[in-house]
Parts: sequence; C-alpha cells; structure tokens
Amino acid sequence: MDAADPLAGMRARFDLPGGLIYLDGNSLGPLSHAVRQRMARVLEAEWGEGLIRSWNAAGWIDLAQRAGDRIGRLIGAEPGEVIVADSTSINLFKVLVGALRMRPGRSVIVTEAGNFPTDLYMAQGSVALLGQGHHIRLVEAPADLDAFRDALDEDCAVLMLTQVDYRSGRLHDMAALTRLAQDRGALVIWDLAHSAGALPVDLNAAGADLAVGCGYKYLNGGPGAPAFIYVAHRHQAEIPATLSGWLGHAQPFAFEPEYRPAPGILRQVCGTPPILSLAALDAALEIWDAVDMDVLRNKSQALGQLFIDLVDRDVQDPELRLISPRDPDQRGSQVAFSHPGGYGIVQALIQAGVIGDFRQPDVLRFGLAPLYLGYADIWDAVRALAGILADGQWRRPEFAQRAAVT
Amino acid sequence: MDAADPLAGMRARFDLPGGLIYLDGNSLGPLSHAVRQRMARVLEAEWGEGLIRSWNAAGWIDLAQRAGDRIGRLIGAEPGEVIVADSTSINLFKVLVGALRMRPGRSVIVTEAGNFPTDLYMAQGSVALLGQGHHIRLVEAPADLDAFRDALDEDCAVLMLTQVDYRSGRLHDMAALTRLAQDRGALVIWDLAHSAGALPVDLNAAGADLAVGCGYKYLNGGPGAPAFIYVAHRHQAEIPATLSGWLGHAQPFAFEPEYRPAPGILRQVCGTPPILSLAALDAALEIWDAVDMDVLRNKSQALGQLFIDLVDRDVQDPELRLISPRDPDQRGSQVAFSHPGGYGIVQALIQAGVIGDFRQPDVLRFGLAPLYLGYADIWDAVRALAGILADGQWRRPEFAQRAAVT
Repeated sequence: MDAADPLAGMRARFDLPGGLIYLDGNSLGPLSHAVRQRMARVLEAEWGEGLIRSWNAAGWIDLAQRAGDRIGRLIGAEPGEVIVADSTSINLFKVLVGALRMRPGRSVIVTEAGNFPTDLYMAQGSVALLGQGHHIRLVEAPADLDAFRDALDEDCAVLMLTQVDYRSGRLHDMAALTRLAQDRGALVIWDLAHSAGALPVDLNAAGADLAVGCGYKYLNGGPGAPAFIYVAHRHQAEIPATLSGWLGHAQPFAFEPEYRPAPGILRQVCGTPPILSLAALDAALEIWDAVDMDVLRNKSQALGQLFIDLVDRDVQDPELRLISPRDPDQRGSQVAFSHPGGYGIVQALIQAGVIGDFRQPDVLRFGLAPLYLGYADIWDAVRALAGILADGQWRRPEFAQRAAVT
Repeated sequence: MDAADPLAGMRARFDLPGGLIYLDGNSLGPLSHAVRQRMARVLEAEWGEGLIRSWNAAGWIDLAQRAGDRIGRLIGAEPGEVIVADSTSINLFKVLVGALRMRPGRSVIVTEAGNFPTDLYMAQGSVALLGQGHHIRLVEAPADLDAFRDALDEDCAVLMLTQVDYRSGRLHDMAALTRLAQDRGALVIWDLAHSAGALPVDLNAAGADLAVGCGYKYLNGGPGAPAFIYVAHRHQAEIPATLSGWLGHAQPFAFEPEYRPAPGILRQVCGTPPILSLAALDAALEIWDAVDMDVLRNKSQALGQLFIDLVDRDVQDPELRLISPRDPDQRGSQVAFSHPGGYGIVQALIQAGVIGDFRQPDVLRFGLAPLYLGYADIWDAVRALAGILADGQWRRPEFAQRAAVT
C-alpha cells in the first residue's frame, strides 16, 4: 500500500524524528523543511537585517491575507473570504457575537453538548457579556439530523458546530445542517479545527456563513499557530467588527480618531499579528499548494480503515471500544477508542514510540495525517497497542502520573 | 560619553546591521543573540523533536506566565500579576470590558483625545458591543492634571490612558492620575506600550488597577510579539473573564462543559498562545534580567538631551519644531519633532541609514533605546538630519512615495 501511495513522497518534506510514529498531528502538526527555511529567513534577513522596513519590503503587512487565501483554497472559500488572525477562541468570539448582532430579536445559540469546550466557553462568555437574555441550547445527539431539526426554531440566531468531533472524529453533514439552520433564519458557524487540512471542505458549496479554524493541527503551522476566520462575501459588509483594533481599520496608518472598519475580511483583524508564528504557518501552507484534497481524503480513509481492521483482528481486549464511526464517510481523519485505562495506555504507547493522545474521560485518540504517515506506521502502531493491552504493562504506576498537559 | 556608559556592553547582545542607526526600536526592537539561539532550540529540539510532548517537557504550558513575571519585574508588578497573551488591543478589550462590568451604574470612559488609535477604537467597539449607554469622554489637554480633574466625576467608570504618548513622548504622572481617578471611584487602565523597557514603571507603587502593554517595542520580542496584561492581585478574583477561552479555564484538560475561570492572572488567557512568537519574546526578556532600570533611565534621558541640544545647535530649519517635552522627567524614551515635510525627511533619513519613523500628520519620531544605542549614534543621526534639511534633498519626489506601512 505504501508503494502505491501517491502522497508517499510528501513525508520527506517533514522533519519527523526517527523511531517515532506520530499520530498526534491533530493536536500539533510537525515541523517541515519549508518552515525551517522560512524561519531562518524571517529571523535573519527580515527581522535582523530589515527591521521595521520589512513590514513593507518583506510583505509582513499582508501576510495574514496571503496565508488566509492559501487556507481558503483548502476549505472551499474564495480569495478574500479567509484571513489568519488571533486564536480560534477569539475568532469564534468575533463571528459568534457578530452573528448575534446580525440577528437581533433572536435569542438562542444552538450547539452540541459534546462540542470542543472552548466553543462552549466562548458562547457562555458571550452570552454573559451581551447581557441580552441569549441562551445556549445543547443538542445531545449530534449524529441525528432530527435532533437539530427539533432544536432549530424561529428564536434561533446561530447554529454553532464543530464539523469533526474532537474526540470521536464524527463528521457532520455541513451542507445539510447549514441548509436546515438557514431555512429557520439562523446563521451558521462552522469550527473547522479538525477539518482544515484533514479532508476536503467546501464552505461555498454548502452556502456557509461563518467559520473559524486552527493553524497548528493538520495545517502544521507550529505550536499555537494563529488561527483563521472565514466570512462569506455576502456577510462581510454587514457583520460588525466586534474587536475593532487598529489593523482592522480602513486606514490604519492614517491614525484617525474614529474607527472605520476596513472593507471585506480585513475588519476581522484586530491588533498586530505575531509575525514569527504567522510566517511559520504561511510556510507550512506552501506544502498544501501541491496537495489534491480528494487524494488526501482517499488515503486518510484508507489509513483509518486499516487501523480499525487491524484492531478488530489483533486486539483481544474487550474493553477497547471504537468510538469513531465505522463508516469512513462519517469520520474525519482520526480514529478514537474508549478504554477505562485510556490514560495509562496512551502513556505506554508514547514510551513505545507511538504518540497519540488521551482525552477525558477515557478516550484514546489517533490522528491520521496522510501527508507524513504511511500504512506501515499504522501497522506498527496497532501492533504496539495490541502488545501493551495484551501484557498489561499500561497498568504500571509510572504510566498513571498526570502531567499538566495530557 | 560612550566610554563612560555602563550599558555600552549591551549592544553586543544584539544583531544590528552595520551602517545603520536604528531609532525605531519604539516601533520594532531588534533581534538579539538570545532570541536567535532560543528560536533554533524551539524549532529543532522542542517542536521538531519533542513535538506535542514539549507542552510539558519544554514548559510551553507555563511560558506565558514566566514571560509575564519577567515583564512584571520591569513594571513594578508582583509575580502572578502579569501574563503574556494575545495583542495589546485584545488585552485592552479584556481589561476595559472587565472594568466596566466591575463598575455597573457608571457610564463614562475617560481618556485622552490623542491616545493611540487602537485604544480609542477598542473603547468605541466595546461601548457599541455592550449597548448599555456607555460613552467616551475625551480630554484634550493631557499635560494638564486639572483637565482630568474636571473630566473625572461620579459617573466615570474607567480612566484609560497611555503613559507615554506615542507621538510626542509626553509622560503621564501615573501615581497622581491613578489617585485622582480612584478618589472618584473609577478604575484606571494604563497602556504601557511605550513604557515597558523604556523607563522604570512602578504599577504597585502607583496603586494601579489594570494595565496592558506591547512585547515588540522596547522589549525587543520580535515583530508582532504577543502583548501583556496586568491585573492587580486585589482585582484578580473579581474581574470577569471577558474572553473565556479554554486555556483560561481552571482545569483546561478536564474538558468540562462549563467555563470556570482559572484563579489569578491565568483567566486573562483565552486560546492557545503562539509559542514561536512567545518564546522569542521570552528569550528577548532574558536580557532585561540584568538591566537596572534606573541606569537605563539615566542613559535614556541623556540620549534625549543630547539629541535636543544638537538639533538646537546644528539645525537651522525654523519649521522643525520639538514636540516632545524639553524637561526629561516629562518625556519617555523618544524625541519627536514636527515639520511640514516630515514624511519626506524620514524617508531621506532612512536612505541615509538613519531609521526613525513618521506619524501623521507631520511627526518625525526617534526612539532612543539605551540598550543598543550610543551617544555617537545620536551625534551621527542629528548630523544626517541637519544635512538633509540644509540641502533640501528630502523634497525629491522619490521620498514622497507612500508605502502601505509608513
């Protein structure tokens, strides 16, 4: 399978340490040669030599737009609909508060109970901040379109969903849910944290309104890379600039006393972006310019299928249960299992050179990034998992010690 | 004077290009060896080799706190009162909205008309967002304590000021203004963008409530380096977490459905920080651990005095007018002049190897960073300025062309 893999050559572009199977690219993607080279240039030539002149000469001033357009190609957005800015949480705040202000008189945010916590937290904070009686309605059965149909009524201002569930990897039907919410007059916010770079996304084909996503997972932009924000062209003039910082001003260097929002997506920028981190993300995105997302998706699904098939065949432990959908079309680019000893098993795997991660309360999560993983990696990873479960080594006390970041 | 300079040895820690006099460290500080070395380590060892494990093993998870405490030492804050996060604009939003929520029933934000635009813009955006009838009261004569005394009444919730004016370099009396506002029951927000690393600041001695500041000016943290936020210990439990992201949660990795703010300054963090940019800032701050801020201030004032004295003596152009205070105790670490041809003069200076910057409408601004500038630099810079004004070369059309960033 590796010999026939059209993406096999991509691995050579990354700096993965030897002796490691890295199944945590859904948490932090790896360093690539393109990023290393760019960072040397940004540090030495642009910052070191160019100093302040590099805002113009090295194009720092529109780097966030250029990187945004690169991401746009991966998620079905037109040029000018995506920009890189701030963090996913802060971008969520911008689009959520913006959407609520675009739907005055409606008071409900519909989301799913299992959404990534920061999405829920930012919604809770926004409701408290606005103090206008908004409330959050949680759908408990996210795989059930009828549950959303019931939750979406005439009082719903916003449907806010993460397309790929961070634990199970379950994939929402973006087009169907967008239509459903819009039919009720609501705006839809898609969190693409586990979608961008993981599978083909087509925001425009789905008629999407607003979206946000993460730069440091499948896009490999580096630890804490800045995030992105998408506003469909048709909403760009209407959505208020909630965080009205100077770089989102129509003329930042006019230093006018009154805020005037920049046209288009630019008003979604607030303060000065962290150029070192932004340049790393932009360099990481160069790799994606050459990637066919359908080819990527085929490999991602095949990697997942192989993982599940091998676990079915080789792992005897009845407590290990697949929590990802078996149907590859309902799954993002990860597989996840539950096991009461999940934390210790993940630690034992890390010690064995297989890096996945653990998520509360009992989830073992394995990210399958097709750019740098091969089928043999999956084979070896499942063999390690089977061995650890068979000999019970994960029960050793050393594997129970919790670190700050799990 | 250079031979007697106790800070003369610091310049060797920076990578300043030859043949350049860099008077724009108040806009973007230069690269240092400490940063270059740290970035190599962060890229290769921490991200490249360590991957996701570096959140614990390399201490990424509390890097924002460590860097914050380093800044705290420079601005008179106790450990645990400062954290690095987001941008100055976003941190302003947090403390401003937080302060308004801590003073319900009061409706006025007092600030100065000449404040840095993003401070005004963020205040305008916050007022519109809250929709509770707050308004902004602008003081036009910022050097006049009586003007503030008149503006501060029982309806004032917040006094929001930038300690050092970004154009003139005029320095506010932090202790007096803080006391004045607090006597009226208002909270005070200090923007330290042009103070931190520029002069000794003592927030605690002034009884300050809240502050924000910039990492990429005098602190030399790199282009767009993350900013900092200060909340006095006595307010930390009371101030709401306005941007309630997951990393400000009491237990981020418990993935609880309800936001519970972290204790202390940690709730001022929102999403995942940009580690590459944050690590650069932290490395740049290492240099400051060895700096006595009183020694720095003495040199800064002497550099400014020399600049002004030489201009008085050597520049004949009557249109060049000092807009900084002549009294060094009322000035930050910059000198600024007005001239109707300001833009072209700054461009001609840049071409001559003297980098300052221009600010609308007619301001020539020269940042005086004592860590890497010597007295001979000032001598040479003023000689270049005098020459450009004397021979009128700044009138050449090439110097009139405006770039995106001026």
